[in-house]
Order: sequence, then C-alpha cells, then structure tokens
Amino acid sequence: MKPSKNPLENIRIVLVETTHPGNIGASARAMKTMGLSQLALVKPLRFPNMEATAMASGADDILHQATVYSDFNTALAECSLVVGASARPRYLSCPELDPQAAVEQMLAVAQSAPVALVLGRESSGLSNAELDRCHLMVRIPANADYSSLNLAAAVQVLCYQLRMSLLADKSALQTAHTPAPSSDMAHFYQHLEQVLLELGFLNPANPRQLMRRLKRLFNRAQPDQNEVNILRGILSAVQKKSLSNKP
Amino acid sequence: MKPSKNPLENIRIVLVETTHPGNIGASARAMKTMGLSQLALVKPLRFPNMEATAMASGADDILHQATVYSDFNTALAECSLVVGASARPRYLSCPELDPQAAVEQMLAVAQSAPVALVLGRESSGLSNAELDRCHLMVRIPANADYSSLNLAAAVQVLCYQLRMSLLADKSALQTAHTPAPSSDMAHFYQHLEQVLLELGFLNPANPRQLMRRLKRLFNRAQPDQNEVNILRGILSAVQKKSLSNKP
Repeated sequence: MKPSKNPLENIRIVLVETTHPGNIGASARAMKTMGLSQLALVKPLRFPNMEATAMASGADDILHQATVYSDFNTALAECSLVVGASARPRYLSCPELDPQAAVEQMLAVAQSAPVALVLGRESSGLSNAELDRCHLMVRIPANADYSSLNLAAAVQVLCYQLRMSLLADKSALQTAHTPAPSSDMAHFYQHLEQVLLELGFLNPANPRQLMRRLKRLFNRAQPDQNEVNILRGILSAVQKKSLSNKP
Repeated sequence: MKPSKNPLENIRIVLVETTHPGNIGASARAMKTMGLSQLALVKPLRFPNMEATAMASGADDILHQATVYSDFNTALAECSLVVGASARPRYLSCPELDPQAAVEQMLAVAQSAPVALVLGRESSGLSNAELDRCHLMVRIPANADYSSLNLAAAVQVLCYQLRMSLLADKSALQTAHTPAPSSDMAHFYQHLEQVLLELGFLNPANPRQLMRRLKRLFNRAQPDQNEVNILRGILSAVQKKSLSNKP
C-alpha cells in the first residue's frame, strides 16, 4: 500500500460512448471543481472537439490528459473497484447504493488502488455486459417523476459527494467568528435593561418576559466583541440624548 | 403553521441577472430532477429564450411557471430565510456554512415558511447590497485551485444536497422558530437607521460600515415576528422619548 496519496487522484471517471462532446467538456469541469483529474473516454462519438473544450472552461487540462479507449474492459484494466452509475433501478444487477454509501466504499479502496466510476450513454446508460463488470451500482435518488439528470450533472453530483465525504473527517468550514466573553454580554444586558427602564419601555412592576426574550435573541446571534461595543455605543447615545433633552 | 407540506416546495431558487439563458434552462432541469419547482429570475438578460427551453429538456414546466422580477428585494419579499451561494470566502459577510449545514437550516424553516436560495451572476456573483439581505451563505467546498462551478452545476449540487438531507430522515427536523419575513426585516432596518440618525450615532457623512455590521448581527439571530415587534417597539420608545424631551 502506497503512502497516503489523495484518494481523489485514484478515482477515474469513465464515460462510455458519450454522444455530445459538450457533456465531455462539462464533465471535465465538474471533475476539476471537486479535485478529480483522471478522465477515461470509451469510444466517444466526437473527441477531441471544440465544443468539449468550450464547455470545459478552464478545465481543458483534464481533457488533454484524458485517455481514449476503444474497448470498455481496457479502460478498467487495473481498477480494483468498478462502480456503475444507474439512472433507474435495475433488475438482476449488482448491489445498488445511494451516493453517500457508494462513495465511502470508493474512498476506502482509492487509498491504495485505482477505482473506476462508470457512466453510460446519454440515451441508454450501460449495457448488460458492462453492468456485469461493475462491483456495485450507485444511483442518485432523483425525483421519481423526472429522474433525467444530464450526464455532466450526474458527474458533478457524484464528484461533489466524493469530495464532501473525503472532507467530512476534517473539521467543517470554520469562520473567524469569536463570540464576546460572557461577562461582556452580562454587562451589555445590564446596560440594555437600564436603558429600557429609562425609556419606560420596561415596566418594573410588570416586566413580563421582555429581558428573557431579548437575551434569547442576542444569544442566538452570538455577537463578537466589536459588535457588543457597537450595541453599547447605541445604548449610550440613547441615554445621552434623553439626558440632554431633559427640561 | 400549515400542515406538513413537502419542504422542497417551499424553497425558491432565485437566479440574479443570469447572462446565459442555457444556464437558466439547465438550472430548471437540475431543480426538477431533485424535486424542486419554484424558480425566480431577477432581471435575466434573455428570457424566455429558445436556448433555455432546449437546456431544460423535459423541465420546461419549471420555466413556464418561473416568475421574473425587476427587483431583487421583491423576489425575496415573503421569504423567512434567505441563503446566498458564495463561490469564494467573503469578508464582512454573514456566516458561511457548507452545503449540508446550510441545507439543514433551510429544510427546518421550509416546513412552515418560504425560503430563498440565491445565486448571483455568472461573472461576479452577488453584490454587497444583495449579500446584506442574506441570513447566511452557503459555499460548496470546491477545489481551491479551480472553484469555478458552472451556475447550473451549483444549482444541481445544492438541490441534490437538499434532497439527500430531506431523505436522510431528519427526524431532528423540528423548530418552533420561524424567522420574520424579509420585508419586515427591511422595515426594521429602515427604522433602526432612522433612529441612529436621529441620535447622531450614525453620521450620514461618514456612515462607515455601521448599518452593514448591524444587519449582519441581526440576520445571524434570525428574529421571529414577535422579536421584530419588540425591537421596533424599543425604537419607537426611543423616538418618543427624544421628541417629548425636546426643549
């Protein structure tokens, strides 16, 4: 087993007899946005092609590196796991998983060996002989009344799921947001309560749930230090105005 | 709160000033495959358009039902949660979540109120004024070296994540919290700005980032109707006090 390589580099997208060259280009773009780069084309109708290059946008390097095969089996030769994409439920086929489950298996294998993700013709998908080469099928759980994902859209979704599942271990995207210390929030709430009393908005004889409601609202926002300073500045401005206007 | 409707029907995809009609059609197709149907178009360059219809494939019903707006705010009017799609990290922006986290919030709110998912121009995304109307941002964690998802590909990925998270049996999906409609928040911000001007806290000659900061803070809290009423009551009390104390 080789030292940890990025598993996405071990996952090959195999497009079988694609009819529209634009779909090849859009698939290359979809792959690259998600960090995949290995593209295999089995008997594409037209390739290389200007429309493919146009749709690839900045991902034409993927197209240049793509390997064209005249034979399906050769395209899979050294792959340890072959996953077929299926647009609809198949009978007498291999196990069919949703993208998340399929991708977990793909990532596990791709740590040490090449993996193929195979997508069939725009019109008719994969043949039975091709399905028989797949270890498992992945099906995107689309709208039953309209399940017709465009080929490149399916590549985008599956590559997205690959990337998301790979990143899932690493901590989620974090923001630089640091909420203000609790003591500062306490001072802010005291200040707010004082001002509301001065305004006559808070009635000490009948406070109801007002401060609790306001605390709940501001706690949800988790203001940072700077924001607490702004809010307290506003409260001070209210007090100053009321005072200076006193008769 | 209405009886349980499919939350996907409460989620509106808002495309802002889309340049390529093909992207509108491909977005409609992407939405329909995942069970979404509400499409709003803000100032599309060309629509209706043959290329849009061609790319929609069998999803032209989505295009026929689409609403075209000449104004961004009107497209969001009754939405309780507004989520912006971001292609790159933004500074001085609202919280930025990955698709899974963002989608959970969207689905929770969409059980009882309309939600908007906003995607900006192909070239330049959303403007600052548009970003300021968003409660949160969602960013697809793309390849840092090539993050250029096609517009319809981004719609496909986000709608896929919505569908997957909905199907994943979110029994945790429950919230009594329904944020106030976007139009009420707009009125609150106008009222707040007016009071800060009257207090002399906001200097029209040098507004700096004050209102943006405050919007970011309150958008994060997602106040509900009752909370907005309390906040506006406080603003009115400040105005009354200042006025009555005038010499």
